[in-house]
Amino acid sequence: MILAAGRGMLEGRWAGEAEPAALAERCRVLLAHRGDASGLAFAQEILSAYEGFSESDRIAFFKILSTDFAIHPDAVLQAADRYRQQPALETVTALRKSLDPPFKKLFRRLNAVPGGTKAIVRIREELLTFTSAHPELSWLEADLRQLLIEWFNRGFLVLDRIDWNSPASVLERIIEYEAVHEINGWEDLHNRLRRDRRCFAFFHMTIPGDPLIFLQVALTNGIARSVAPLLAADREVIDPYAADTAVFYSISNCHLGLQGISFGHFLIKQVVEVLRQDLGNIRQFATLSPMPGFRWWVESVPLDDLPAPTGSDLRIVRERPVNTENDDPQVYGLAVQDALMRLAAHYLIEAKRKDAQPLDSVARFHLANGASVDRISWGADVSDAGVGRSWGIMVNYIYEPKDIEKNHETYFQTGEIAISNRVRKLIKAR
Amino acid sequence: MILAAGRGMLEGRWAGEAEPAALAERCRVLLAHRGDASGLAFAQEILSAYEGFSESDRIAFFKILSTDFAIHPDAVLQAADRYRQQPALETVTALRKSLDPPFKKLFRRLNAVPGGTKAIVRIREELLTFTSAHPELSWLEADLRQLLIEWFNRGFLVLDRIDWNSPASVLERIIEYEAVHEINGWEDLHNRLRRDRRCFAFFHMTIPGDPLIFLQVALTNGIARSVAPLLAADREVIDPYAADTAVFYSISNCHLGLQGISFGHFLIKQVVEVLRQDLGNIRQFATLSPMPGFRWWVESVPLDDLPAPTGSDLRIVRERPVNTENDDPQVYGLAVQDALMRLAAHYLIEAKRKDAQPLDSVARFHLANGASVDRISWGADVSDAGVGRSWGIMVNYIYEPKDIEKNHETYFQTGEIAISNRVRKLIKAR
Amino acid sequence: MILAAGRGMLEGRWAGEAEPAALAERCRVLLAHRGDASGLAFAQEILSAYEGFSESDRIAFFKILSTDFAIHPDAVLQAADRYRQQPALETVTALRKSLDPPFKKLFRRLNAVPGGTKAIVRIREELLTFTSAHPELSWLEADLRQLLIEWFNRGFLVLDRIDWNSPASVLERIIEYEAVHEINGWEDLHNRLRRDRRCFAFFHMTIPGDPLIFLQVALTNGIARSVAPLLAADREVIDPYAADTAVFYSISNCHLGLQGISFGHFLIKQVVEVLRQDLGNIRQFATLSPMPGFRWWVESVPLDDLPAPTGSDLRIVRERPVNTENDDPQVYGLAVQDALMRLAAHYLIEAKRKDAQPLDSVARFHLANGASVDRISWGADVSDAGVGRSWGIMVNYIYEPKDIEKNHETYFQTGEIAISNRVRKLIKAR
Amino acid sequence: MILAAGRGMLEGRWAGEAEPAALAERCRVLLAHRGDASGLAFAQEILSAYEGFSESDRIAFFKILSTDFAIHPDAVLQAADRYRQQPALETVTALRKSLDPPFKKLFRRLNAVPGGTKAIVRIREELLTFTSAHPELSWLEADLRQLLIEWFNRGFLVLDRIDWNSPASVLERIIEYEAVHEINGWEDLHNRLRRDRRCFAFFHMTIPGDPLIFLQVALTNGIARSVAPLLAADREVIDPYAADTAVFYSISNCHLGLQGISFGHFLIKQVVEVLRQDLGNIRQFATLSPMPGFRWWVESVPLDDLPAPTGSDLRIVRERPVNTENDDPQVYGLAVQDALMRLAAHYLIEAKRKDAQPLDSVARFHLANGASVDRISWGADVSDAGVGRSWGIMVNYIYEPKDIEKNHETYFQTGEIAISNRVRKLIKAR
Repeated sequence: MILAAGRGMLEGRWAGEAEPAALAERCRVLLAHRGDASGLAFAQEILSAYEGFSESDRIAFFKILSTDFAIHPDAVLQAADRYRQQPALETVTALRKSLDPPFKKLFRRLNAVPGGTKAIVRIREELLTFTSAHPELSWLEADLRQLLIEWFNRGFLVLDRIDWNSPASVLERIIEYEAVHEINGWEDLHNRLRRDRRCFAFFHMTIPGDPLIFLQVALTNGIARSVAPLLAADREVIDPYAADTAVFYSISNCHLGLQGISFGHFLIKQVVEVLRQDLGNIRQFATLSPMPGFRWWVESVPLDDLPAPTGSDLRIVRERPVNTENDDPQVYGLAVQDALMRLAAHYLIEAKRKDAQPLDSVARFHLANGASVDRISWGADVSDAGVGRSWGIMVNYIYEPKDIEKNHETYFQTGEIAISNRVRKLIKAR
Repeated sequence: MILAAGRGMLEGRWAGEAEPAALAERCRVLLAHRGDASGLAFAQEILSAYEGFSESDRIAFFKILSTDFAIHPDAVLQAADRYRQQPALETVTALRKSLDPPFKKLFRRLNAVPGGTKAIVRIREELLTFTSAHPELSWLEADLRQLLIEWFNRGFLVLDRIDWNSPASVLERIIEYEAVHEINGWEDLHNRLRRDRRCFAFFHMTIPGDPLIFLQVALTNGIARSVAPLLAADREVIDPYAADTAVFYSISNCHLGLQGISFGHFLIKQVVEVLRQDLGNIRQFATLSPMPGFRWWVESVPLDDLPAPTGSDLRIVRERPVNTENDDPQVYGLAVQDALMRLAAHYLIEAKRKDAQPLDSVARFHLANGASVDRISWGADVSDAGVGRSWGIMVNYIYEPKDIEKNHETYFQTGEIAISNRVRKLIKAR
Repeated sequence: MILAAGRGMLEGRWAGEAEPAALAERCRVLLAHRGDASGLAFAQEILSAYEGFSESDRIAFFKILSTDFAIHPDAVLQAADRYRQQPALETVTALRKSLDPPFKKLFRRLNAVPGGTKAIVRIREELLTFTSAHPELSWLEADLRQLLIEWFNRGFLVLDRIDWNSPASVLERIIEYEAVHEINGWEDLHNRLRRDRRCFAFFHMTIPGDPLIFLQVALTNGIARSVAPLLAADREVIDPYAADTAVFYSISNCHLGLQGISFGHFLIKQVVEVLRQDLGNIRQFATLSPMPGFRWWVESVPLDDLPAPTGSDLRIVRERPVNTENDDPQVYGLAVQDALMRLAAHYLIEAKRKDAQPLDSVARFHLANGASVDRISWGADVSDAGVGRSWGIMVNYIYEPKDIEKNHETYFQTGEIAISNRVRKLIKAR
Repeated sequence: MILAAGRGMLEGRWAGEAEPAALAERCRVLLAHRGDASGLAFAQEILSAYEGFSESDRIAFFKILSTDFAIHPDAVLQAADRYRQQPALETVTALRKSLDPPFKKLFRRLNAVPGGTKAIVRIREELLTFTSAHPELSWLEADLRQLLIEWFNRGFLVLDRIDWNSPASVLERIIEYEAVHEINGWEDLHNRLRRDRRCFAFFHMTIPGDPLIFLQVALTNGIARSVAPLLAADREVIDPYAADTAVFYSISNCHLGLQGISFGHFLIKQVVEVLRQDLGNIRQFATLSPMPGFRWWVESVPLDDLPAPTGSDLRIVRERPVNTENDDPQVYGLAVQDALMRLAAHYLIEAKRKDAQPLDSVARFHLANGASVDRISWGADVSDAGVGRSWGIMVNYIYEPKDIEKNHETYFQTGEIAISNRVRKLIKAR
């Protein structure tokens, strides 16, 4: 009776003082039994014991799993050989099975526990931080990623509106998770949830009350070109049924453990649909977006990498007097400002990664979604973060429902980016 | 621009008159795009077009998918070779990817549609019926099964109680799905949902209002030995807080498309837990179960396969005068009845499959769950179905919380079945 | 310690065997204490004991209450005198208080019990049946009515849609309460709840799951002239978004205990609003209504009461050969049919009560609401009930949103009834 | 057509610029029609116009109502005479009707509007503030009070738990309404809603999201004697299932407009019941209560009103050196402290109003509910408010479920107050 034996062996140390090897042993016991009587309680205990672990114990635990709960290369190769000899459903099934490690089975079992899915997302978050120092844990992380891709299929996400009637425990998380424009406490949050604002989030059905990703929207008249008026505590609240524009001014992923499992494009597109249905008066959908890598690029790109006129702009920027006190955009000279704006257009539209996609991560996201670049604005985010990212420059992308598909196609087929005449002039201005 | 081209090409035939090849082409278009603007609408159209297909069109459609959306053996073998040369995470990931066919990706995309999960379950149900005549479709069926195993992880199931306050649309399905003891309309259902009855079901979060499996429980004093008094329209309703026993008298799977993805043992065990919490007065948990294969076994087992005394019983039964009119259990002679009872005990406890598990499917289910065999009863289900299955003989299995784990262990370690003295006597009586 | 004393005194008989006098004594004890510790339990016991009473005990109990829990005429007269001497707020408050009997206070206390409001509605229903034989109980009934008017203020009613997803326990009540066109079981009900049907009900917040009044609506193309096609089991279900008409074909009050507290006009008008919002395609709102008093009127009105041409019609009808077998409308001769139609128009439009309102109760209801009379149809309800009420004749009233207010005004100011040309011709035809 | 006329007349001024007389005229129009088509919209407009009024317009409006929508003394007297001549149900009904002013009917109609009940509660709040300067408005206030008593019957209140999962919009109100120990923002609130705290509120069904009264409870080990440790930001959170005591440390009424309609005793008793059911480990229920009138009494009671020893205590207190800077309880000499404690005991237990009930309002509340006085504590609330009320002295009342009824009885029958020996000694100590 393995289970009872296992229990006896561990009994003394259990309840918070398990050590990594003993916990791995318990995982083995769990896997040896199918959904048995105490299966859920058992899985719960494993998660609890893990919670009690120090970081070093967690790493030690995962190292055991990465050897003892891994696939067996010999088994894989044998299965591959058998498939080679006879490529039938039985042999392919066996080959797949040989590639499905006990680690994945373990997490399928742990997922059954109430709160299990969330615990597993957190575990992947930890694994992601461990892998640089412990690359052998990447195997586990890759397995978890596969499971999470299936479990967080779009069909299992629920769109929900967040407003001032949402539970405080949810709103507290919005404050915590906001990644683009920090929320300074409850009054600031309340201001962002007034009747001319919308906030939508995806939730997963087994992680109630904890959003996966959320999008903040300002209903405005005309496209907002800078962020401060949107967030001002004393801004005038307008009638949402009289607004003509929806400005997506912040989108935040909430869980590092879901990295690489993308929800953002689904969210933006569904929010466009919801707003079109609820507010017939909204005629344009735009973002007010940061250029997170711009300043870093300006400060690090080799001059030689750039075509001549852009290189001149870069030189102008690099030669501006160092201002040690602050980076107040008001203090730049006009020449520097013009140069930065042209550089920004170049960075957004023409600076590419090796895979020919734009260097800027936010640009990659919106352009792949089918948005176009409408305007680049000076002095748009003069917060420390905004100046630090891009000297306060921000971008409006436009989601024009009738063009989204065409833009998306063109972008993926030809790499061409849809831009407004206004932005085109900035590029030609060089 | 593949998408627009695809659309143009199909445009004329769309809206209900797609043919299999055109639909497969659309599936290819869908896969060529990531969650694009019209992705959901596109996926919805594919499911709708499929709904409009005749059976032969469906089969033709799947045949195309089974060739065009399958894995490529060459790619698999090359990936296997690379893994053989260097068994690293990259090569194993590539090998796995080569085994993940476009068909699976397609269904991940279709699952995003509201109602998609349910549609996919139905599609698997159809594939299961097609595979005998079209074995090449087994490949698709196997892929769907893998997806459904992940998507129907225990963590995503919700236990809910069904009672007379449940929506009529749900109750209608209970009437339809009941597999063991047919429900004869709304009055009969109401009778089974009175305050001394419980009905619990698992639901999946994306299939609201449609149970996956449900369990019917009668709260009684003492273990019910036969089914008629439990279902009688004029039975006396008792105080649930005065009952001492919970009798699980029917468990029904609702969707053929979920065949092989087992929920039953989770359901029974969670119901035991719920009842223990809600009704402290319940002291024993028992089933009243059919022996679905008994009569077939008696009528087909070769005499030589049986040990001597059991063989004698079998001869007695086989020699009883043929009763063409009915199989009223009242008309069997006592000798025949005794022989049948002993044969039933033998069939349950000692008749095994090649894998050494019991021949009877219901016995396999309950014994694997950790139940014990408490009693075999004559005249317990005198309905046509009951007599047809087992001359009306039924079995009580016992779920004794403190023994479940031990029984389960013993059963899997040694194959030994926990039985009561009463049943032991039946076996020794031979 | 009155309470303890009271308890001691009653203790022996309690739990189902209280007698009327003892129960009245308990009511007195309850009133002697303000919301004390055991107040709710105490009130609950009183209601339970009452439930256990036979009808004669109930009457005896109410008779005690009607003397012991009534106002004191002397106190009223003294308070009136004081008010006469000094008509101040204090004296008017004292006068009102003298008119507020302990019986009302008792029911305010009983209402606090979960389920209390519903129990009180049932008690009023009983009182209404008792008052003809026991007119002294009218005093109690009048007090209850006053309480119920406050408690069932329109602001406390909740409109809810009833459909096939409603709880079976609610639908069961719809079957039971339907007063106009009997519902023959669950299949018939399901047929009335298909997607081209609507059913709306008012609920009270303390009586969940038990409607107060409900309205059945058929979405159709054109106004239905007869009831059978609406209810036919094999009728064609149409697309609700393609219908142009909403036909209110049945409105049923559910609780006799709420008699005289009218909800119907609120319900019809709110349903019109809801349908206009949800289904922009609906362009007309009509009823298909019975004439419940028509046949009785034709058979009992003195000939001399009628103007000459109508008197002729009446004579034609009264002289038609007696058909003992049935009243199949097909068998009337055309002359009789014409006469009946003209009589129906006269009955609806011109036959009045002493207070100058229409004789027909359904006409009074719809006309006061602002509806107009659109059409009178032969053979519209050939059920036994329909023939019994009005030889199968039914009426379409029209609720034209833009005319409702004007019609309502004219009706109450001048008594004039809005009618269509079609109906006008019927009247002039005489 | 009164309505249309009315509309025409007002049309020009409507939408925010109605004047009192015009609004009163509209009220008259509303009353002239029964639940007609536009009734709800009409009532809504009246409430909106009122919202737009200045205070002086509101007073002017109510003055018109108080004459034009009042009862008619002559009609009352005539009805009283008729009742005198023949005291029958008809005459008593007529008399009651003569006492039911149009003002009440008006508010019954306004209550039907969504949000109407809440608006009416606010209107009564205003009337209460107006009556001192405009005593003739007391008539209206008295009528509203009668309506609100019926509408806020205990049966229509819903007990709900408030916690960190409650909507932020509800929690915001808790912060605003807290009357005893001010809540300093969201962090302080969160601290009061941790797992060893409970907060329960009554809601009315038509005022969702806005509590009527709420009670804050600390789960502790032993009875808390002072308030600071309960509210400390860095307090240790304990396991609620290991606590033995529930301390009711704050109860706040939320709406001045519901003054005189008492919910508090229902709330405390139901919370005791709920906690007994949920947390079997709680063995005692105590309050930590202020003595709101103590300091005022000490500073204003005439020396001669007190018995000799208490008078000495009072002299000691009055002679203490004036401390203009603060009233830090630490700086009182021990003699003053002892004198204050004895005076507190006298004030609580022996100082009475003319109606022989305790002078202290909080004492009246808890003692009438059946609580006993357990302890009087020095330095229990050293906030400015606490020192201002009672030099920081607080009281623990005990709700012992088995004594509540007896205490309540004794208190009302004999005026005797249940006190602990500890408190008895304080009184005897003089």
